[in-house]
Amino acid sequence: MNRSELIGLSPIIVEPIVRAALAEDLGRAGDITSDAIIPAEARARGVLATRQAGVVAGLDVAAMAFRLLDPAVEIEVLRQDGDEIEAGAGIAVVTGKARAILSAERVALNLLCRLSGIATATSAIADAVRGTRARVCDTRKTTPGLRALEKYAVRVGGGVNHRFGLDDAVLIKDNHIALAGGIRAAVSKARARLGHMVKIEVEVDSLDQVPEAIDAKADVIMLDNMTLPEMRDAASMANRAGVVTEASGRITAESAAAIAATGVDMISAGWITHSAPILDIGLDFEGE
Amino acid sequence: MNRSELIGLSPIIVEPIVRAALAEDLGRAGDITSDAIIPAEARARGVLATRQAGVVAGLDVAAMAFRLLDPAVEIEVLRQDGDEIEAGAGIAVVTGKARAILSAERVALNLLCRLSGIATATSAIADAVRGTRARVCDTRKTTPGLRALEKYAVRVGGGVNHRFGLDDAVLIKDNHIALAGGIRAAVSKARARLGHMVKIEVEVDSLDQVPEAIDAKADVIMLDNMTLPEMRDAASMANRAGVVTEASGRITAESAAAIAATGVDMISAGWITHSAPILDIGLDFEGE
Amino acid sequence: MNRSELIGLSPIIVEPIVRAALAEDLGRAGDITSDAIIPAEARARGVLATRQAGVVAGLDVAAMAFRLLDPAVEIEVLRQDGDEIEAGAGIAVVTGKARAILSAERVALNLLCRLSGIATATSAIADAVRGTRARVCDTRKTTPGLRALEKYAVRVGGGVNHRFGLDDAVLIKDNHIALAGGIRAAVSKARARLGHMVKIEVEVDSLDQVPEAIDAKADVIMLDNMTLPEMRDAASMANRAGVVTEASGRITAESAAAIAATGVDMISAGWITHSAPILDIGLDFEGE
Amino acid sequence: MNRSELIGLSPIIVEPIVRAALAEDLGRAGDITSDAIIPAEARARGVLATRQAGVVAGLDVAAMAFRLLDPAVEIEVLRQDGDEIEAGAGIAVVTGKARAILSAERVALNLLCRLSGIATATSAIADAVRGTRARVCDTRKTTPGLRALEKYAVRVGGGVNHRFGLDDAVLIKDNHIALAGGIRAAVSKARARLGHMVKIEVEVDSLDQVPEAIDAKADVIMLDNMTLPEMRDAASMANRAGVVTEASGRITAESAAAIAATGVDMISAGWITHSAPILDIGLDFEGE
Amino acid sequence: MNRSELIGLSPIIVEPIVRAALAEDLGRAGDITSDAIIPAEARARGVLATRQAGVVAGLDVAAMAFRLLDPAVEIEVLRQDGDEIEAGAGIAVVTGKARAILSAERVALNLLCRLSGIATATSAIADAVRGTRARVCDTRKTTPGLRALEKYAVRVGGGVNHRFGLDDAVLIKDNHIALAGGIRAAVSKARARLGHMVKIEVEVDSLDQVPEAIDAKADVIMLDNMTLPEMRDAASMANRAGVVTEASGRITAESAAAIAATGVDMISAGWITHSAPILDIGLDFEGE
Amino acid sequence: MNRSELIGLSPIIVEPIVRAALAEDLGRAGDITSDAIIPAEARARGVLATRQAGVVAGLDVAAMAFRLLDPAVEIEVLRQDGDEIEAGAGIAVVTGKARAILSAERVALNLLCRLSGIATATSAIADAVRGTRARVCDTRKTTPGLRALEKYAVRVGGGVNHRFGLDDAVLIKDNHIALAGGIRAAVSKARARLGHMVKIEVEVDSLDQVPEAIDAKADVIMLDNMTLPEMRDAASMANRAGVVTEASGRITAESAAAIAATGVDMISAGWITHSAPILDIGLDFEGE
Repeated sequence: MNRSELIGLSPIIVEPIVRAALAEDLGRAGDITSDAIIPAEARARGVLATRQAGVVAGLDVAAMAFRLLDPAVEIEVLRQDGDEIEAGAGIAVVTGKARAILSAERVALNLLCRLSGIATATSAIADAVRGTRARVCDTRKTTPGLRALEKYAVRVGGGVNHRFGLDDAVLIKDNHIALAGGIRAAVSKARARLGHMVKIEVEVDSLDQVPEAIDAKADVIMLDNMTLPEMRDAASMANRAGVVTEASGRITAESAAAIAATGVDMISAGWITHSAPILDIGLDFEGE
Repeated sequence: MNRSELIGLSPIIVEPIVRAALAEDLGRAGDITSDAIIPAEARARGVLATRQAGVVAGLDVAAMAFRLLDPAVEIEVLRQDGDEIEAGAGIAVVTGKARAILSAERVALNLLCRLSGIATATSAIADAVRGTRARVCDTRKTTPGLRALEKYAVRVGGGVNHRFGLDDAVLIKDNHIALAGGIRAAVSKARARLGHMVKIEVEVDSLDQVPEAIDAKADVIMLDNMTLPEMRDAASMANRAGVVTEASGRITAESAAAIAATGVDMISAGWITHSAPILDIGLDFEGE
Repeated sequence: MNRSELIGLSPIIVEPIVRAALAEDLGRAGDITSDAIIPAEARARGVLATRQAGVVAGLDVAAMAFRLLDPAVEIEVLRQDGDEIEAGAGIAVVTGKARAILSAERVALNLLCRLSGIATATSAIADAVRGTRARVCDTRKTTPGLRALEKYAVRVGGGVNHRFGLDDAVLIKDNHIALAGGIRAAVSKARARLGHMVKIEVEVDSLDQVPEAIDAKADVIMLDNMTLPEMRDAASMANRAGVVTEASGRITAESAAAIAATGVDMISAGWITHSAPILDIGLDFEGE
Repeated sequence: MNRSELIGLSPIIVEPIVRAALAEDLGRAGDITSDAIIPAEARARGVLATRQAGVVAGLDVAAMAFRLLDPAVEIEVLRQDGDEIEAGAGIAVVTGKARAILSAERVALNLLCRLSGIATATSAIADAVRGTRARVCDTRKTTPGLRALEKYAVRVGGGVNHRFGLDDAVLIKDNHIALAGGIRAAVSKARARLGHMVKIEVEVDSLDQVPEAIDAKADVIMLDNMTLPEMRDAASMANRAGVVTEASGRITAESAAAIAATGVDMISAGWITHSAPILDIGLDFEGE
Repeated sequence: MNRSELIGLSPIIVEPIVRAALAEDLGRAGDITSDAIIPAEARARGVLATRQAGVVAGLDVAAMAFRLLDPAVEIEVLRQDGDEIEAGAGIAVVTGKARAILSAERVALNLLCRLSGIATATSAIADAVRGTRARVCDTRKTTPGLRALEKYAVRVGGGVNHRFGLDDAVLIKDNHIALAGGIRAAVSKARARLGHMVKIEVEVDSLDQVPEAIDAKADVIMLDNMTLPEMRDAASMANRAGVVTEASGRITAESAAAIAATGVDMISAGWITHSAPILDIGLDFEGE
Repeated sequence: MNRSELIGLSPIIVEPIVRAALAEDLGRAGDITSDAIIPAEARARGVLATRQAGVVAGLDVAAMAFRLLDPAVEIEVLRQDGDEIEAGAGIAVVTGKARAILSAERVALNLLCRLSGIATATSAIADAVRGTRARVCDTRKTTPGLRALEKYAVRVGGGVNHRFGLDDAVLIKDNHIALAGGIRAAVSKARARLGHMVKIEVEVDSLDQVPEAIDAKADVIMLDNMTLPEMRDAASMANRAGVVTEASGRITAESAAAIAATGVDMISAGWITHSAPILDIGLDFEGE
């Protein structure tokens, strides 16, 4: 990945999240253990190091946690967001006030491990579909409060983002279709009410809905829980019509290659944000 | 579990989280799909139903999401937090404005599925150690912003909570010990600086530190990544001295029973909050 | 307009804005005039009435201001958002505690008059282009803090919304093109980095850029400050290629019809949000 | 104007507004166009330049927008708040990271253009009454959330401020008078309840109320929608009694001189904050 | 005091303070004692009762604390803000969920006792000066975050409020005078820069400054730490000129009568907000 | 006190409080007096100096107030938190922009004087019990919004902290005991529901409850309003059982020594936070 063109994370978005996380952990008295035991002037040096292989994401976020407690902390970055890292490797070296580093450690790691876990999970699917037309994307099944960060981690892992919220694209599901009286009526109402900068996706769960969605001029068709042959047929119809297809429904790194082979454009996976295990990263202290 | 004595969740704590989650998802224009397609006066009825077996947690939190978008929504609760629920069972029925229910659905599910996933994971360990003296507890490896909710889910799953933040109990780790010049010095400094309502725990990673921690009058000794025989010896020493022991380090539902058999008092598990998969719960719409 | 399908305003979005507006006006002591002079138990009845003809927008927002200061206030709605109202007509009747109504009056009117001014301005352009394929839309030139409300007012006035922020659609301007090395490179980078739910618009200021933008597979081409003949040619090329066109640049109700006649799809106007005068609406008290 | 004695704008007040404006525009993913297309290390240089003549206000506010996204941005100020600037003139030069400058541009301009529009409108009236005893002032008809900034812009334009909210001065209107049983009773109640640091103004709409207000010892009398002869008589009576007069009611730059000639002390104008068009200012990029 | 004309407290101002106070006390897990021990369905009835005589203030504020934790709580009000209450008297009866009442108790009492302490202190001075022209007022020496509430308590105690902040009135102190080059220059600059709704007070600490302040047309003269004879002379000069005088400097209930006898208009006391002891009020539980 | 091991105050906790205090005082227009009178470029130098003897606390908090209004302000610290300072001594010298120093002065002093008042009150009791086993601690009777700061001031004064909120330790009072059906039942329920890091205290008001609390294995017994002989007996019983005792109930610096002599471990005092008078500290300006 060309990192310099990665869609990044503005400090305007990140800082309030990290501040709130620190406030949540520090509570009303701060780190009473470190303050009671470690002299205010003591300094420490710690290495952020992986305990297992994976793709790292969130180094700037973790660094902000340390910096907010010690503005003079020095952070030497050894690896970058998006790097595939082997187990046991150092990612960054943090040098500064011992109290501040110990107090910020858990918040920094909670964020870094979670985001790296998401990047690692995304990367596994992205690797599986490499060479096909398919790209992997996320869903809105993210952790409340952390969507911006988690969607960033998906990008770091080689995926792209589905919509960011309810307001930036239209996704017409079965309930909308039922309440609107059919796909055509639903798409048509959305087109009429919404501007020209909004894409419209229709979720279908059977092959016979595909032509209907194409006719209704949907921009994207979500193929929900279809069999591989169904996906192949659907993708074929949609491709001919210039409509994008998105395969959806419990897709894993194992099943992704076969799905990609059906010719779909996008593969969306909820578990990469809602159920990916963290990537285990720790902070190892060294004599300074 | 006697639910009426469960340590609950104050709306003062929960409401800001749910409001922020809704705001994150609604963005600057709200649910453009539902608003464009569904008449404002349309009503809907949906059933929250499990897709897999597990322990449900967070029904009040999910209900708040619906209620904040439609104060008149009716929620009929079929099962309660802490119930072990089979796959496919209905948990609650939500009846109200169709737009509001569809708009709140994802936020409600994101919270409910995550908390239920944590309760289910906790419950697996709690079941494994039933009949021993050991209890399962959590760590500070929680999702930033959601600690109060996630620690509640641990309680719902039959666990108890370790400290809530850096400020409500002392946990002296290897780095503190190194910087303080030994366990005795570290505990003594903490005792002198802190009040009588704070418990002091010392993390040890070898058997020979156990007597030192007991002598220092630690309230709790954390046995970090010890072998089963080491744990047995440590627990035996500590029990005699009236000191509580806590086993720590990559503990799973599989390994918990053997660990509990060593005689430790507490088993702490980070993965129940940082890596537990969600419990899959959906909202099924019905004709009203 | 079919009001029941208008894309509305969630209270989750509106309430914090109205609360903040009331707090800004009440300061640290509240409405000292009304409190000092009017007995706490006094009641009043006021009619929200137009002082000039226009399209009203924001009745729910204004009502929320009264309701937040007196939860028992009664609001009888005589007209609805989107109604074209003649000068001097009553819009709603507010009955409740005199202190609360007087204290909320200014905030309610500041919001209602501003939003109605925007709806009225939008409506003037929308009326001018009726019968053509062109629709009117807004820009990001909105009042900081009020974008959600102002874009709602545009919808009420018969317009549709351009993007809501920097993150929900791509708009490639001259500076982006220069830094990327051309339209094709810019669009191609955006496609590669962004998901399938994001539309890509390219701003062009000369006719010869139009084929380049079409070739680059832009979804939308913005025709910036073009002459009418240029717009006609550009629209013609783009229509054939199935690409949407948007006319931009100091468009007024007077110039809109001629622009619409060129065959463009969208007409965007910044002044409807940044410079539209308010619609003058007052609150007339009556004996109760 | 002696700029060094202008009543300024504290960063404590401004920063939260600018941060919120940036967050509103950046949404959940930031500036996806610039991030996708422009390398993170690219730099740019832009000139803030007027498109029309007017009085500039808000340069510090605009600068803060750029600085919050790139703390190392350099801003060379060419003109200052309060300067009357000809069309096409450069106001400031912004040099820094290209992504940050492009991402902050709209927020910076939205604030700068609005505040400059207000200063320009204020200045027009201030110019019209120069040489008379009359001064121009604002009202509470400001944009919710931006009152502090808009009242600053009025000062920059050569006006002074009326009260900042409901709590810092008393303004007794017709409804208060009616509910209190007369001007004398209303003023007397306010005097009794309020401290010695609060001024009391009474709104009158007929000449015969003027002596009543003077007798009641009002500090200020607002002459609402009076004819010029009525204003002259009212001002004459009030001046003799040492009471300040304020003319109010749809006052424009055209009508201000004649009103000032009546001898009133203050001329208040709502439209300078609620309906003044923006001053068109743009950001022109240059090769660096 | 005619309570129905007391300048009250808007819920818009109070609710965020009470919510924040509850959140501060509930922390990340809520009231673990009550939740662990008391069944969720248990109910309780408690009487707010004084432990010492004084003037009660803040009943609505305390009631809000209970109501925010149990919206169905019933509060029977026995006495009102401003009542002089004997030791041991019941003020209000609170009936509702036992957990909620116990959890809100401390926050309710912390606010009620503090505000009642301020009202009681204010009342002591107000009583001492009854029958003179002097009124008692407060200062800006209030508790950060609670100014609105504390100034309300002063009003309840029979005082009036000095300015609410730095922005609603001018108070020219010695340092301002020194930096401006004299009283006349300072007042003149303030008059020129500020509107007609702002009062200007000048602090003087010697008799010879009084005529200077009168000449400069100050609205109010603060007599700082003067002797009684000095105050008498100053008040006499100022009264003749129609200028208000304010005595300031370590004024107590004991010294107030003599000061009032000098003929000053206002007596300001900082200690009533910064050092008044609380009024001891408790919550006594009864069988329900 | 070894200041370098004092449990400090994180800027994450302090900064929002100081920002809010400044915003409360600056209102919507800032310090209109200083801005109108003092040139923007004027500089000043002021000395924070005590007006009475006491223990200073909160210098960093006060310094933050100046720094937030003038990031370049220089603060020369002459004395430190915890120092016992004689009347009239300089504590710190503040040099910077005159406007900023004058504008921040009141907020800085309001915080510094209050915290120093608490530290001074705490220190008086701490001095009285020196040489005994007893330590002084605080309660939850703190000022809403300032608990973290006030508990810090108690530590500075030589005390230690009781619990920080309702969630970090258990305190079983008479009402809990009544609702649970006795001390044993109450403690047992708390033990079962709560983790191993939470201390449990039981409040008793008669001697015969002491053995019951010891049997129930309470960690701490609060002796509420007992006579000295009762305290002696209770302490004696509890000490033998290894249970900590805390004396509570209107304890003053005068009564503390006798109470400490009874052998109790802790003496808790509410008045040090809720009713301690401020320590009078002022800011004296000097020629620069």
